[in-house]
Amino acid sequence: MRIAGFDIGGANTDLAVVELDESGDITDVKTDFSYLPMWERKDDLADVLKELLEPFGEVDAVGISMTAELVDAYKTKKEGVVDIASKSNDAFDVPVGFVGLDGMMNLKEVLDDPLKAAAANWIATAPLAAKIKPDTILLDTGSTTTDIIPIKNGVECALGRSDLERLQTGELVYSGTLRTNVAALVEKVPLNDTMARVASELFAVTADVHRVLGNITKENYSGVTMDGAGKSIVDCRRRISRVVCGDLEVLSTDEIENIAAYIYSEQVRKISEALKEVSIRNRLHHVVTTGLGMDIIASMACELAGLTFTGMDKLLKKEDCVNAPAVGTALMMEPYLTKKNLEENLEGF
Amino acid sequence: MRIAGFDIGGANTDLAVVELDESGDITDVKTDFSYLPMWERKDDLADVLKELLEPFGEVDAVGISMTAELVDAYKTKKEGVVDIASKSNDAFDVPVGFVGLDGMMNLKEVLDDPLKAAAANWIATAPLAAKIKPDTILLDTGSTTTDIIPIKNGVECALGRSDLERLQTGELVYSGTLRTNVAALVEKVPLNDTMARVASELFAVTADVHRVLGNITKENYSGVTMDGAGKSIVDCRRRISRVVCGDLEVLSTDEIENIAAYIYSEQVRKISEALKEVSIRNRLHHVVTTGLGMDIIASMACELAGLTFTGMDKLLKKEDCVNAPAVGTALMMEPYLTKKNLEENLEGF
Repeated sequence: MRIAGFDIGGANTDLAVVELDESGDITDVKTDFSYLPMWERKDDLADVLKELLEPFGEVDAVGISMTAELVDAYKTKKEGVVDIASKSNDAFDVPVGFVGLDGMMNLKEVLDDPLKAAAANWIATAPLAAKIKPDTILLDTGSTTTDIIPIKNGVECALGRSDLERLQTGELVYSGTLRTNVAALVEKVPLNDTMARVASELFAVTADVHRVLGNITKENYSGVTMDGAGKSIVDCRRRISRVVCGDLEVLSTDEIENIAAYIYSEQVRKISEALKEVSIRNRLHHVVTTGLGMDIIASMACELAGLTFTGMDKLLKKEDCVNAPAVGTALMMEPYLTKKNLEENLEGF
Repeated sequence: MRIAGFDIGGANTDLAVVELDESGDITDVKTDFSYLPMWERKDDLADVLKELLEPFGEVDAVGISMTAELVDAYKTKKEGVVDIASKSNDAFDVPVGFVGLDGMMNLKEVLDDPLKAAAANWIATAPLAAKIKPDTILLDTGSTTTDIIPIKNGVECALGRSDLERLQTGELVYSGTLRTNVAALVEKVPLNDTMARVASELFAVTADVHRVLGNITKENYSGVTMDGAGKSIVDCRRRISRVVCGDLEVLSTDEIENIAAYIYSEQVRKISEALKEVSIRNRLHHVVTTGLGMDIIASMACELAGLTFTGMDKLLKKEDCVNAPAVGTALMMEPYLTKKNLEENLEGF
């Protein structure tokens, strides 16, 4: 059986195509993604989903998880969920299911209670982490946000259910590998033995910081740049210099790298702080790291918090860890599909 | 004599037309402004300058100050200053002068040393504050930034000269009445007896906060909104709710107003902190407040710092305080023009 899992985020839509044998074991995983800024191009969603899947051939079913309902093109999250679910459902001829807070849902169930399907992609990732260790914390540092999900006896037990609640419980930190405005991470940065306040514009993002520090490659830097310029190290340095109202003529490479290193350390510190909150509250001292930032941010946050950790690459190929929520979404679709078939057959009796 | 002063910012271009009698005393001031996002529309600058001035009729000279060279449409500040100065100079047939860190400059002088004219508009505002009190701190909270300029014996004595230096000395805080990303002001906000982390997107700005709190009117809210929606209180509330991944269905008006009030207090606190730095370093205990935020932010920051203050409206009409740098720029042009004429006449001998 071949199942596609899509994770539709505000900026990126991830795809995983998972092949399962008859006993439900994974025989193959393939992943891809597309930069789709939903605040600008939500009407392209169905086309992007189909284009992404096209090279992988036919699938038996499609699973969908989403966080894009939060983009400000939607007045409410309900409006967003309804739009995204409807478009996704219409895009395919095979069965489509949606990841909800209490498990998979069909379109009708989503339309009846849209908030159940809002920002629930972490629900799909948690079982993957649980396969590695049944008592652990899932720490998924993606491009935009970081999920910190406690798991006990193999089952996620997040205190917060919505993203709003998880921002209160420390289970969601709105800080990621690529898209985080550096002005949201730091109030001041070191410069010539003083601390300089930063410009509160959207001059540079964490992708610029991690690119300058050699943490990510040009290929990792998906999406647009804030000034519309390129993604070379020099371009990234220029954007970081602007954060203190500088440019490449007034700031040296050393000074810019120092600033970047400080922003990096503050990003790790803040994620680590939330991780400690979740660790203490749940008495969990092990972490499974995943996402684009697993080796550069998540693992450092674990070390700073004094917690042991295992990478999701123990279970998935390294490159598929970036798309772990999409893989998890596809995997959740398999038992659902079986159950669904069973129910439909029973209905026939 | 009638002189126009323009203050060309990244987002807004302000104009003041000042009428002076033969002894150089102000007989009339008129002001206006135009929203001109220079990161998108720098090529419209000359047209906007001419359109802004047109209703006021002929003038004898034009003074220019600028901060727009920082926008990321320019690779370096030098490039920005040269472009802005050239376009401004070409727009008018009357003499044009530029506010520089050491006084007025002509185009040639600006082209020879562009950084002298970068972010120097506070140089033009300081003499206005000095007229109110010769030993004071100018506290100008505009739409985007706050200038904190020490003045002794009637002369500004800022330790930092460039905006980069002033970010280090506390003489520039990148926080203003309208355009500041709330995610750059606060890491957490109060919600149901807990503190919720905020989304690091550009969902809401200080204009939304101050509009919700009744600090500014719809007319004060210049520029675009972050979601492209309107500027009603409800629209502003919706944008603020998004900062904690909420919407108007999951958050009450009270909860949103509490969040706004907290962001407001943090904005005041941070500006007050910088104000205290400048006050202590210079042993100055009086402040002259001006700018769009003079009565809602600057005055509160003074009170929090325990400093006495006088509003710039002691000297200018209330509505002209918003454009104090443009008024100051026009006023600096007058003696420069006289000096310039004198030098040209002398050259003739």
